[in-house]
Amino acid sequence: MNVPSGSGMNEDGLIAHVRGRVATDPAPDIGIGDDACVWTPGGPTCLSVDGIVEGRHFTKDDPPQAVGRKAAAAALSDLAAMGARPVGAVVSLHCPSRWSAVEVMDGVLAELQRHGCHCYGGDTTAAEQLTISVTVWGESVPDGRFLARSSAEPGDLLVLTGQVGGSLRKGRHLSPQPRLAEGQWFAMQMASKAMMDCSDGLAADAAKMAAASGCGCLLLPGNVPRHDDVDEAADVYTQALCDGEDYELLVAVDAAAWPALQLAWPFDLPLTTVGWLIEQPGNFIEDHLGRVIPSPFQGFSHGL
Amino acid sequence: MNVPSGSGMNEDGLIAHVRGRVATDPAPDIGIGDDACVWTPGGPTCLSVDGIVEGRHFTKDDPPQAVGRKAAAAALSDLAAMGARPVGAVVSLHCPSRWSAVEVMDGVLAELQRHGCHCYGGDTTAAEQLTISVTVWGESVPDGRFLARSSAEPGDLLVLTGQVGGSLRKGRHLSPQPRLAEGQWFAMQMASKAMMDCSDGLAADAAKMAAASGCGCLLLPGNVPRHDDVDEAADVYTQALCDGEDYELLVAVDAAAWPALQLAWPFDLPLTTVGWLIEQPGNFIEDHLGRVIPSPFQGFSHGL
Repeated sequence: MNVPSGSGMNEDGLIAHVRGRVATDPAPDIGIGDDACVWTPGGPTCLSVDGIVEGRHFTKDDPPQAVGRKAAAAALSDLAAMGARPVGAVVSLHCPSRWSAVEVMDGVLAELQRHGCHCYGGDTTAAEQLTISVTVWGESVPDGRFLARSSAEPGDLLVLTGQVGGSLRKGRHLSPQPRLAEGQWFAMQMASKAMMDCSDGLAADAAKMAAASGCGCLLLPGNVPRHDDVDEAADVYTQALCDGEDYELLVAVDAAAWPALQLAWPFDLPLTTVGWLIEQPGNFIEDHLGRVIPSPFQGFSHGL
Repeated sequence: MNVPSGSGMNEDGLIAHVRGRVATDPAPDIGIGDDACVWTPGGPTCLSVDGIVEGRHFTKDDPPQAVGRKAAAAALSDLAAMGARPVGAVVSLHCPSRWSAVEVMDGVLAELQRHGCHCYGGDTTAAEQLTISVTVWGESVPDGRFLARSSAEPGDLLVLTGQVGGSLRKGRHLSPQPRLAEGQWFAMQMASKAMMDCSDGLAADAAKMAAASGCGCLLLPGNVPRHDDVDEAADVYTQALCDGEDYELLVAVDAAAWPALQLAWPFDLPLTTVGWLIEQPGNFIEDHLGRVIPSPFQGFSHGL
């Protein structure tokens, strides 16, 4: 770790605070406070980094603990999207003095611990804009494997966990629920072909899975499960398909095995067919008259 | 990865650019463009994240490729400090439109490749302040082990690679040289007890190693090797001990084995005794009259 920021605490103080809050079981080979952490992987390892930035993924008025929780949850969602079991995390925190670095880190640690992910260390500097990058890694579950987004095939059904839409407007975007148990379950089913999490809106994310797998996709907007609180006075399909920051799982499954898979689904969360993959490249929908047309939906883009 | 920024290229374009520049050997199990990367570790793994921020670690006028190289080199220096061999990296890039994300990433990739470190992916968002966090991981070399900073003992000599001082004033801070080969060599010597890299100034870094190892330290300011270009009109000792951003290795070695170690040192880089560890907690120096006094030197702090 490098340096201090905010909350009247310098970096050494922050390290001591974090070390005091981190579970000592499992003990890393080398942990917080050294140049790097050391652990002994149990096999093939899956790793992702995800960063969130003030003014784009949260506002200056959001509670610091909630912001920290979101940073950790968004990163863990990438492990869920691979079907991985979380093992460890390190945090890169760039924190202006108007934010409490301690409260942000408390949020990060609470969310990591809730999912059995050990914090092994990190780096902190002062900055003008609060930026939190969380690197997480994990391993596959027994009888499971990692599910890439590029291994789907034309004819596979696209199924979605939970509901989507209205995440930003209703504030749900601040408390994403990484679908780790659900992702691990899919990783153990032979009928699962490919998986990803939905952070940019179902329309954009389905298109990404299709492109990565060298095919096209067709979505059924009327079949996409929406949150109860989407704005019914506005276009509900656009909200469900384009709002983004849903963090639900989109899974390509073998169509022939779908009924058995649906019956075996052990979670309360809904699991819904939202479309399928097709040979023709490009993104299509079936409109309310049953006609196949090019998709009019664009996903959410953080940066433009 | 999340989103676009700068240089008229969106995130998908940046991913494609990076993918085109990354060596395909060794091929990861799952690489750039998925929710997470996957690789198969060869054993205990050492990981660190290091972030640099515009206005603190570089200026708005520095060349983007140099900034990218610095971000990667600073992170790799943490692996050098453990004696590790680099394996992989992921990059979290938060980039305002006035910076070229492509040129920054070109700098990151060039520096990673120069040290045999594979880029496995990352995440990018728009931001108001350029912030680059690089997560790197590595493994130990044959017949080597990882060297923590906490395993030194009173009586161990403190030895330093290269020269220190004037890094910020002379611009050397933009092109740190991670001492990977040297760190790996120390990791193979039984006489090496503890190691770290010097980023906050030798005075602060030696104090950190001593504190982590539960002892104190005594430095010999007159013996600390200074760069030829430190400002001889100003206090040369303060420059050498406090300027920071040197990225040289500080190693605690068994004093009895020092002559043999010095004779075996296979590098052109100087290797110099700069002090030793003592039982009494605290930081001391031997002044120009040979008196032991409390250290008047404070290290560089990025954030205050």
